[in-house]
Order: sequence, then structure tokens, then C-alpha cells
Amino acid sequence: MIFVGFGFLMTFLKRYGFGAVGFNFLLAAFGIQWALLMQGWFHSFQNGKILIGVENLINADFCVGSVCVAFGAILGKTSPVQLLIMTLFQVTLFAVNEYILLNLLHVKDAGGSMTIHTFGAYFGLTVTRFLYRPNLEQSKDKEGSVYHSDLFAMIGTLYLWMYWPSFNSAISEHGDAQHRAAINTYCSLAACVLTTMAFSSMLQKKGKLDMVHIQNATLAGGVAVGTSAEMMLTPYGSLIVGFICGIVSTVGYVYLTPILESKLHIQDTCGIHNLHGMPGLIGGIVGAITAAAATEDVYGKEGFIKAFDFTGSYKTRTPSIQGGFQAAGIVVSLLMAFAGGTLVGAILKLPIWGDPADENCFEDDIYWE
Amino acid sequence: MIFVGFGFLMTFLKRYGFGAVGFNFLLAAFGIQWALLMQGWFHSFQNGKILIGVENLINADFCVGSVCVAFGAILGKTSPVQLLIMTLFQVTLFAVNEYILLNLLHVKDAGGSMTIHTFGAYFGLTVTRFLYRPNLEQSKDKEGSVYHSDLFAMIGTLYLWMYWPSFNSAISEHGDAQHRAAINTYCSLAACVLTTMAFSSMLQKKGKLDMVHIQNATLAGGVAVGTSAEMMLTPYGSLIVGFICGIVSTVGYVYLTPILESKLHIQDTCGIHNLHGMPGLIGGIVGAITAAAATEDVYGKEGFIKAFDFTGSYKTRTPSIQGGFQAAGIVVSLLMAFAGGTLVGAILKLPIWGDPADENCFEDDIYWE
Amino acid sequence: MIFVGFGFLMTFLKRYGFGAVGFNFLLAAFGIQWALLMQGWFHSFQNGKILIGVENLINADFCVGSVCVAFGAILGKTSPVQLLIMTLFQVTLFAVNEYILLNLLHVKDAGGSMTIHTFGAYFGLTVTRFLYRPNLEQSKDKEGSVYHSDLFAMIGTLYLWMYWPSFNSAISEHGDAQHRAAINTYCSLAACVLTTMAFSSMLQKKGKLDMVHIQNATLAGGVAVGTSAEMMLTPYGSLIVGFICGIVSTVGYVYLTPILESKLHIQDTCGIHNLHGMPGLIGGIVGAITAAAATEDVYGKEGFIKAFDFTGSYKTRTPSIQGGFQAAGIVVSLLMAFAGGTLVGAILKLPIWGDPADENCFEDDIYWE
Repeated sequence: MIFVGFGFLMTFLKRYGFGAVGFNFLLAAFGIQWALLMQGWFHSFQNGKILIGVENLINADFCVGSVCVAFGAILGKTSPVQLLIMTLFQVTLFAVNEYILLNLLHVKDAGGSMTIHTFGAYFGLTVTRFLYRPNLEQSKDKEGSVYHSDLFAMIGTLYLWMYWPSFNSAISEHGDAQHRAAINTYCSLAACVLTTMAFSSMLQKKGKLDMVHIQNATLAGGVAVGTSAEMMLTPYGSLIVGFICGIVSTVGYVYLTPILESKLHIQDTCGIHNLHGMPGLIGGIVGAITAAAATEDVYGKEGFIKAFDFTGSYKTRTPSIQGGFQAAGIVVSLLMAFAGGTLVGAILKLPIWGDPADENCFEDDIYWE
Repeated sequence: MIFVGFGFLMTFLKRYGFGAVGFNFLLAAFGIQWALLMQGWFHSFQNGKILIGVENLINADFCVGSVCVAFGAILGKTSPVQLLIMTLFQVTLFAVNEYILLNLLHVKDAGGSMTIHTFGAYFGLTVTRFLYRPNLEQSKDKEGSVYHSDLFAMIGTLYLWMYWPSFNSAISEHGDAQHRAAINTYCSLAACVLTTMAFSSMLQKKGKLDMVHIQNATLAGGVAVGTSAEMMLTPYGSLIVGFICGIVSTVGYVYLTPILESKLHIQDTCGIHNLHGMPGLIGGIVGAITAAAATEDVYGKEGFIKAFDFTGSYKTRTPSIQGGFQAAGIVVSLLMAFAGGTLVGAILKLPIWGDPADENCFEDDIYWE
Repeated sequence: MIFVGFGFLMTFLKRYGFGAVGFNFLLAAFGIQWALLMQGWFHSFQNGKILIGVENLINADFCVGSVCVAFGAILGKTSPVQLLIMTLFQVTLFAVNEYILLNLLHVKDAGGSMTIHTFGAYFGLTVTRFLYRPNLEQSKDKEGSVYHSDLFAMIGTLYLWMYWPSFNSAISEHGDAQHRAAINTYCSLAACVLTTMAFSSMLQKKGKLDMVHIQNATLAGGVAVGTSAEMMLTPYGSLIVGFICGIVSTVGYVYLTPILESKLHIQDTCGIHNLHGMPGLIGGIVGAITAAAATEDVYGKEGFIKAFDFTGSYKTRTPSIQGGFQAAGIVVSLLMAFAGGTLVGAILKLPIWGDPADENCFEDDIYWE
């Protein structure tokens, strides 16, 4: 998903295919190594050595996922050096945020609605706000797609869509929770495709479909069950969440993205606010509600304790308290994103990183033979 | 396979890539939800609730596979609304047909030669017969491919080819049967590639290869062992089946498809009759023969009972009787396909669904921004 | 990896996409069947029958991998008939070479640094030396890429990259060795991407990146741990190997490939010497060193015996002797490659196989409709 999925999803720009897939490859390969170290120091450091297993590789992949999300906001407007610096800081902050959420707040977030999507999206949006380019319309003609570039992007979309159930369930407790996570995600994604298509057609003047929506908004359903998929959201609940997110995300692309640019000076190339930001927040909220509504009746006595890990020092935690902590996790992720984005945005603003001129944005020619 | 495989396989048209991959995405997402409900009511309804597990998701996927097959026949000639209506009816009829075959006739069909391919293909062909457009040559220039659209289609082909062994073995009994299904399918597919290439070259005037054959006929070997792969077809038998199907399918593309259009008024955009229709029938027949030829010597006493599920009320069934029921399954699938196709074709013929004019067929422009 | 990975990796040529993916499909399908037979006779022949399991299919796939490697050297310069003949001989020789290494020398080579990459690359280079075309510059303008063909090639690259950890670990002992192989390969690949990007940029005049390097040299890290990945190479060691191979491979593309053509008359279309040849040799050497350096302290008593299979008649073998045999394996693979390449090159040189004229090289038009 990280390499093929995100890489090809961003090839939709007519003149930035090499940059999309190539720089994504670069930052992912760099980020994974750095994440293995960072997460190793936080979570699996023993006797002066970091223990590495397949689960660590998955977690490093997840961490890089949040960098790929943020990359979407600044796509085409930065140099490779800027991307590497952003990756360096973002992976570090991701590991800190993850440590606060999972270890200190004892929050559940298997598919990363909060840690990956909310954090990644608002981090990226803050960075792109700092890198605001008032004269970007000089390269507006390049900020579009051509026929075949849209098809390449669909490879990314379908890849992400297909593997999202595995993504959301990858680090869940094996057995029931993992099973639930895969099925709930699948239902949410399927519902999301339908509402995206319907609203994409309804919101256009001539009733035509827009490839941008199909490529992106169809995935919002997976983002929005990232926290709750492993809980007893039920297939019915998942369908509702997917249904809503398809609408929210598509409406966001049509109305919100232009406003963000004109009023708030946030230039969001891939529209990550619609695909990861809002659905991530919804995912956090749905997770908090689902956790607060949990009862032993539904999960069974043993399943209940296992689902939320109410053992050891968390033995006395009740579902409603857990719901409160889940909500706190959203707030912490947002604060970390804004603070981190401000820091990194200010650093990347320095005029020493060789960023492209306004008329060279969304253009492979300056970095590729 | 459903989303990437079928979606990209159909992108070969020069001006219909968005429609191929986008509408396939739409109908698959819709079909899966509807199939979960339909198959749930038929097969896993308990205490007013439908039980959903991963196997149900796979079965829903299979069901949608038959819709994707039928979509191939009418590709480029219908509106999205017509596709949704067809999906609604076809999924319903698929579930009924599957119930008759698996539960009433007690037939084996793990890879769906009968339920998916034969049913899907002849259903789609009947529908396209009803939607016959005498003046379609107005958009004949668009019913071809360009260089890169053929490469996109190859993504679909290779995806389907690679995952076909998993497809045919997905719902087989774990262990021996599943192992057999994967290996037999693999052998059949490999043999099929060779004869397709050979005949594609032999049947052209200048000995050149034709991408249409490579994209499609190479897959016929997987279709044709859909019923028998989990049985004792043996690798040798699989090679023979694949060998024959590569020939049948390629010859079909060269000679039969033009005749179907000119004589029977069946306009089959993707040539599903060659890829799914005839190989599906062959698959059903091979399955019937392989079942009828089964002996305890070859399967072992326990394996024999397990392979054909000769337990409970089927305890006294013999291989030759099983072969007869398998053959009956082909006939039932065909009848369901013709009856269902007639019904749906008549409905889609109504002039209220916004189907494209003859000169707009195979053209993304009318449905996509 | 064989069908999608190698197939699309070679689509980078602007006018040879059909040939790359189509002929690769053909020779892989043919090679797999032949390899099943050849390897069956050598390794799993019992009572007049060849036993086939999933592991045999994987081994046949590996065998075909070496053919795909050699195909890269002669890409665009041969007829399909020549490819089939080369496949026939190369699979046979691969099976002989594998038998000598694994059974006679008792060498470890799970990911095939020696058997697949070294053998395949130098075999292919010898063949292309025999097929030297002095007037190839007549079609030099076609021996380049266009924008979208490079993106298709990136599909292949990312596919190979992603699945390389599975490739190197596929036939390792389940458990520890397999676990190690996947993690070590992953680390090596990630490090390799970074040095490739850095050196690609440094070695160009204007500091731009070159897609040829990104598509190919990023994979060298996987080749170079093919022998040692399942041993105690440690993640740290893997990072170093990947780091070095990214440099070696990129430098090879920039400086060595032109020299090979002008001085040694070796026309290496895909630069397999840089991606498979040198990294394969490095992989063999790293494997020999890692084996020679093995101690019971690091592996544990039981793990030590299992890792190198020091049982039966090999009970008394020590790590340093094993290292010597590993080194002998490299030499044998090279000798087999040169001898086999000479034989096959001489056969393919005969003017009866319908190879394309110099001005038709790298051109789909002569073999495809």
C-alpha cells in the first residue's frame, strides 16, 4: 500500500508522475529505516539492542503511511531534500504521538484513524500553509491530469482499496478482533464507493462523474473505521460510517478545498483534508463512541477485557472512561500535528533547500532527466 | 481480481478507460453488498441475523465475478444506471442458481465454471442481444485500442492470471483439495498461454501476434478447470485442458465473434463468449467427466467421500450419478442465464435509463468530466 | 514477480511494451512447465512419477526468474522463437547448476544470488555478446523511453521491490530462517533505495535523477542478500550490503554499461550486469563470508545445525569449510553461465530463427498487430 498504493495514487498530475512515484519511494524507504529505529527505542529496546520482527516492519510501514499522507498536501511544491527533512521530523513526532496514545492514554487505534490519518493530514496541512505560494496559478495548467495519468492513479486507488481491510486489521489481536476489523472495513469501503459515485454525479452541473472523487473519496470509508473496525461496530454500523464518509469527502472536494485555498491559504494538492483529515476525525469520534458503548453482553466477558486490554493497571477502567481517553487521543493527535507542522513548516520555509520556483511546480523536468 | 483484474482488463478501449475501471468499481462495490445479503439469506441466516465471515466475503466476490463477466459483453454501450439494475437482478439470479446447484443438485463447482462463467457469459450475451444496436459502426473507430491502453489491459490480464489458482482453490476443502485446485489451475493456465500465442500467430496473415488474444485467451485455461481443479484432474489432464482451451478461445476471437455479430446480432465488446462462455461450458463438461470417472482407488476411501461430500442423504450417490448431476448443473445454469438475460435485457431496453446514443458508445466523455 | 514484476520492468522502451510484457509472459509460461519437468527429474522423481507440490511451483518460478534476467540483456533484439530456444536450454542448465550447488556442493542459496542472478546475468551477457550487432545505432532512437513507458516500468519495479522479501524467504526453513530472510532483505532494499537516489543525482551533470537508476538499481539490494538473508547477516549487516549495492549498481549504469558496449561488444539492453551480475557476485561473496563466520554462539546449537543443514554426511563440516564451498558455488555458476551462454549464443546466431533486422530492433511493429 505504501509503495504502490500511495505512489501511484499521486501520479494523477500530468507532468509529475516521476516525482509522485519516485519521491514517494525515496521518503518511504528512508522513513521505514528511521521509523524502525524510533519505534524500536520507544517500544522494543532491550539490553542495548532493538528487537525487530515482522510486526515492527508493519508498524514502521504505518508510520510512513502518515508521511505519505502529508506528502499529498505538498505534492509538486517541494524539493527532495525538503521531503527528507519532513520525513525525519514527522517520523519522530509520529513515534512520540503514538507512544502517548498507545502507552500513556492506553487508547485503541489499530487502523490509525488518529495516529496515521488525523495526525498526518493536519501535519501536512499546517506545513503546506507555511509554504503558501501566492503566485501558484503560474503553474495551474500543470495542476491537472491527462487521460492516462488518471488511469495510473486508479492503480493506486484500487491497490489501497483492496488492501485496506488488511491494513486496518494487521496489528489487531489475532482471532476475533482481526476478523472483525477486516469485515467492518470491507463493508465501510463498499458503502463509501456508492455514495461517492452518487454525490460526485449529483454535485456536477451535467451529472458527470469526476475522476478526482473516484480516486480519493472512495477510500474515505477505510480511514473512518480505522479506530473502530476491530471493535463491535457491526457490519451495519460500518455501512453507515462508509455511507456518511463518502458524502463528506466528496462534498469536501467540491466545496471545501477551494475555500481552504482562497480563505485560509492552504494549498492542498491531493485534497488530503477530504480523504484523511475529516474522515480521520470522524474515525476517532466513531471509535470513542463505539468504545464508550461497549458492554460485556455484546463482547462476552473474556472478549470484553481482551478487546480493550483492561488488564494490569487498567483493570478498573470502564467503557465510558475509555471513550473519554479515546476522545483525548484525537485532541492530542491534533495538537501534535499543529505544533509539529508549525515547526517543520518554519524549517522548510528557509530559503536554503532548493525548492522549485512557482512556474516549475508540478513539473518533473527540474528534478528528473 | 474483481477490482484490479477485471477493471483493468477492460481498459483496452482507447476512449473508455475511465468507464471500464470506474463502472466496474461501482458495480462491484454495489454487487458485493447485495450479494452479502442475498447469499446470507440463502446460506447463513440464523435467528433473524445473517452471519458474516471471511468466506462470505469471498463468496460475494465470486458472485460479483459473474456480473463483471456479463459487463464485458455490454461494455461501452450502457449507462451506469443500467449497470446497477443489471447487477441487482444478476446477483439475485446468481444466488438462486447457486442455491439450486450446490444445495439441491449437490454439485461441486469450487472455481465456478458453471455458476460464474457459464451463467455470467450467457446472461451477458442474452442481454447484449436485446440491446442490439444496428448502427454501432458509427462508433467503430472508438472500439479499438491504442498502444498504452493495451498495456493497461495487460495489468488486468496478468493480475487475473496470477491469482486464478487462488481463485479456483479459495473455497475448496482445506488441505488436499485446495492444494490440488491450485496446482491444476496453474498447469492449465501455463499450457493455455502457449497455445494462445501459437494460434494467435498462426491465424494472422503475417504471423503477427494480436494483443486481444494475449489479453484474453491466455486466461481461458483457468476458466476451464473451474469445476474440476479440486478433483483428481492430475497436472497432465490440466495441461491438456489448458492446451485445448487456448485453441478454442483464440479461434473464437478470430472467427466466431464476427459471425455472432453479423448473423445473430450479438455485439460482444470484450469477446466474453470466447473467454468465459465456451471455456465455461468446457469446464462444466470436464468437471462432469472427472467426477464420473472418480474411484476410491485414486482418491483413497476417506478422500473420496470428502472430495464429493458423499455424506448424509448423499451417502449412496455413486460417481456416475454425480457426473449426471454435474451435467444437469450446466443445463440449469444455461437456462437460468437465458431466462434471466431475457428478463433483464427487456427491462434495460426501456427507453428511460439514459443509455448513450450510437455515436457516443465506447466514449468516456458523456459520463466523465 | 515473474509475470508482473519482470514483465512491466522491461516495458520502459518506448516502442517495445508489447514485446516486453508479452514475450516475458510467453517464456515464463513455457519455462515453468519445462522447469517443473527438469527439476522434477532431478529432485522429486519417485516410482516413475514426478511429485508436484506448491514448493515445486515456487522452484520452477525461481528457475524462470533466471531466464527473465537473461531476457533483459537481449530485450528487443530477438525473435520469439529465439527466446523459446534460449528458455529451453537455460532452464535445463539452471537445473543442472542448481543440482551441483545444492546437492553436490551442499551450498545454501535460498534467494538465488548465485543460481538465479549470477548464473542468469552472465548467461545472458554471453548470449548477447554472441548476438552483437555492430549497426545497432540504426535503432538507437527507439532504445529510449517515453514518459508513460517509464511509469509502466515503475509498476514492475515496485512489484519486485515489495515481493523481494517473500522471494528471498520463500524456500527457507520455516520459522527462524524464513523470518530472518524477510527482515534482512527488507533492510537491504530500503538502504539500497537511498544510495541509489543519492548517487543517481550526484553522478548527473545537473544533479537530476535518472529513472533508469530508480527502476533498476533500487533492487540491487535484494539481489545481494539472496544467499545470506536467511543467515545471521543481522539488520545492520543488511543495511551495509544494501548501501554498497546501491552505489555499485548506479555507478555501473553510468560508467560500466557504455564501456561494456564499446570495448567488449556486449549490448546489455536493460543493464542486467548492474542489477543482477555484480550484485549477484557480491551476494555470493557475502554469503560465503557470512557462512564462514557462523558460530554456535550466535545461532544456538540447534539453530546452527539447522541453518546449514549439517546433518548426515555433512555432520563434520565446519563453517569455514562451508564458506569455501559457498565460494566454489560462485565459480561453478559463472563457469556454467559462460559455457551455456556460449552454446546458446552460437545456436541463436544461426540465420534461421527470423531475428529482426537492425533497424527493427526495439520495435513492436514486426511481431504485433
